[in-house]
Amino acid sequence: MTSSDLQEQLNIKAINLLQEDANKIEKLIEVQMENLATRYCPLYEEVLDTQMYGFSREVDFAVRAGLVPEFTGKQVLSKLERNLAVLYEALNKKAEEREM
Amino acid sequence: MTSSDLQEQLNIKAINLLQEDANKIEKLIEVQMENLATRYCPLYEEVLDTQMYGFSREVDFAVRAGLVPEFTGKQVLSKLERNLAVLYEALNKKAEEREM
Repeated sequence: MTSSDLQEQLNIKAINLLQEDANKIEKLIEVQMENLATRYCPLYEEVLDTQMYGFSREVDFAVRAGLVPEFTGKQVLSKLERNLAVLYEALNKKAEEREM
Repeated sequence: MTSSDLQEQLNIKAINLLQEDANKIEKLIEVQMENLATRYCPLYEEVLDTQMYGFSREVDFAVRAGLVPEFTGKQVLSKLERNLAVLYEALNKKAEEREM
């Protein structure tokens, strides 16, 4: 194997690992979205924030270690952040409805 | 460069990055140890816990991405955990003294 083959292999592996972890967070967001009306769990937000923090540290490490381009790292993170923002907006709306 | 040279280079880079981040947490622990008697800040524990969590995610990623052997990753983490345990013991002792 040449060194550029190896670099490519390691890069693909790293991106796949990050995508796996992003999917887990995505799943958490989906579950909470589905349960908005029925079972609201306030701990969910804290769990999601912690997961997001851990994930951002993973992405940052992958970029610094030269496995993932900075742009790709930012893209993966910001996609998750957008979905999280949609969830939080929905949660806030629900909270306001409960207060009425 | 051969692929084994590249692998070695990436591994060294990854370990150096982890060591850098471990040193930052080490520094936080030291500062809090030095300030035990004078300025106790209860937020410090939360900051350290968060930093430790983020760091453990980095280490885990480095191991999964094939950059760092599992044994090395565990070593770096458990060294930090031991230092953290010493700090928490000292903090508890201080708290007990204050209560007397």
